[in-house]
Amino acid sequence: MQEFSDERPIGIFDSGVGGLTVMKEVMKHLPWEHIIYLGDTARVPYGVRSAETVSRYSFENAEFLTSKGIKALVVACNTSSAISLDMLHKEFPIPVIGVVEPGARAAVKRAHSDKVAVIGTETTINSGSYARAIKAIDTSVEVTGVACPLFVPLIEEGWLDGEIVNLTARKYLSSIIDDSAGVLVLGCTHYPMIKNVIGKIVGIPLIDSAVETAMEVSSVLADKGLLRHEGNMPVMEFFVTDSPEKFISTGENFLEHPIERISKVRVAR
Amino acid sequence: MQEFSDERPIGIFDSGVGGLTVMKEVMKHLPWEHIIYLGDTARVPYGVRSAETVSRYSFENAEFLTSKGIKALVVACNTSSAISLDMLHKEFPIPVIGVVEPGARAAVKRAHSDKVAVIGTETTINSGSYARAIKAIDTSVEVTGVACPLFVPLIEEGWLDGEIVNLTARKYLSSIIDDSAGVLVLGCTHYPMIKNVIGKIVGIPLIDSAVETAMEVSSVLADKGLLRHEGNMPVMEFFVTDSPEKFISTGENFLEHPIERISKVRVAR
Repeated sequence: MQEFSDERPIGIFDSGVGGLTVMKEVMKHLPWEHIIYLGDTARVPYGVRSAETVSRYSFENAEFLTSKGIKALVVACNTSSAISLDMLHKEFPIPVIGVVEPGARAAVKRAHSDKVAVIGTETTINSGSYARAIKAIDTSVEVTGVACPLFVPLIEEGWLDGEIVNLTARKYLSSIIDDSAGVLVLGCTHYPMIKNVIGKIVGIPLIDSAVETAMEVSSVLADKGLLRHEGNMPVMEFFVTDSPEKFISTGENFLEHPIERISKVRVAR
Repeated sequence: MQEFSDERPIGIFDSGVGGLTVMKEVMKHLPWEHIIYLGDTARVPYGVRSAETVSRYSFENAEFLTSKGIKALVVACNTSSAISLDMLHKEFPIPVIGVVEPGARAAVKRAHSDKVAVIGTETTINSGSYARAIKAIDTSVEVTGVACPLFVPLIEEGWLDGEIVNLTARKYLSSIIDDSAGVLVLGCTHYPMIKNVIGKIVGIPLIDSAVETAMEVSSVLADKGLLRHEGNMPVMEFFVTDSPEKFISTGENFLEHPIERISKVRVAR
């Protein structure tokens, strides 16, 4: 039983608003924690950029958040997690939790088959990081990855149902249906917004890394005695690298919570 | 008659590959000119960012190109032109040519009606810069602007025909059909790649700013005695802020010319 209540905030970053789905789950699982969220909206999206650039951006984001005195770092962006988690572990002396490993663990647990499918951005899929994380748990599992570059712009446009998103999803997901995978990992924080469309097409269980990651954050903080478990209402603070207006309007849909304390900052060096 | 042949290159920048459609036209109209092209691929797309951020990025791009000793600057990005042309004119002591004014002039000339429609990114349309440029020529012309945020990702994905791009275009363009405009300005350098789809839906003439801009560059350089008109084959040099691989493969389709001398650079300050 932990006695000490650690007042330091948890830091969460994403390339934009998508990581708010992870923050929402962290708030549910750890309702006492102060949270600082950084959305790198001046350089979103990461999923189309090279590994080298994603790595540099991730470092700069982590540096900004650690300068705010966080006790743990959550990388709520699949592309950043896929590319830069090892580097962040080496560079920063606090617990660093990504979204790929929790998603991979849940996929293996629930697959009931030797096939797992993963969808994500081009850079996430090309990195092969989900396949590596899954094979590290069970080498016999076969992993198919499909990049779905149009899902993020469709979701940002608010076209969450109807003919266009259905046809697009059908086009991307046809190889997964043919492949008889046992489970599909939503390897991008935006995708849960269209999980009904995706679920109907593939007809297999979907893994939403946000929930898995929040459980991982909770267990890491408990293990290390870093939980906050008393005091005043926790404070939620937001930083963005482009102007806050659009982030607030889209973000409140993702977070299902008001976004009040928000500032624009520069993180690029 | 100009005697002196100005060996300095023309500088062209865009947020990514789209501006290569402008470069292609400049090469056609001014076949002797050396050209330096900068694609800010580490921060593309500009059309979803705030005016302040687009302005900062545009300044950094212009600063990089002027450090290379260019004789004129072409802003081949509609969003940058819409937001930052006045600032660039003030900050840099060389001719600066954007894509908005040439497109606006051509629209008024060819409209044969008092209504002009413009499509572009969200930031371009929200800026109202096409409407201002058109009204500066003829106050009686009515301008309707429609933002089409999914066109760029669809084009980058290579889905240039078929049901999905057709349905998307129909959805965005329906208000333009209803509005009985006389001409439609393609206010984004990517859009000429789907001009067949757009043209069939709207059934009115389309204005491609790339051609108009190249003619403007040609006439500005001639007026100021800055043309190159003799010597060895001109040199085409490319700079990108993210890794060159993807830029080369997509870019050669846009430019219809090999991309050989290319380097990755940092322009962010």
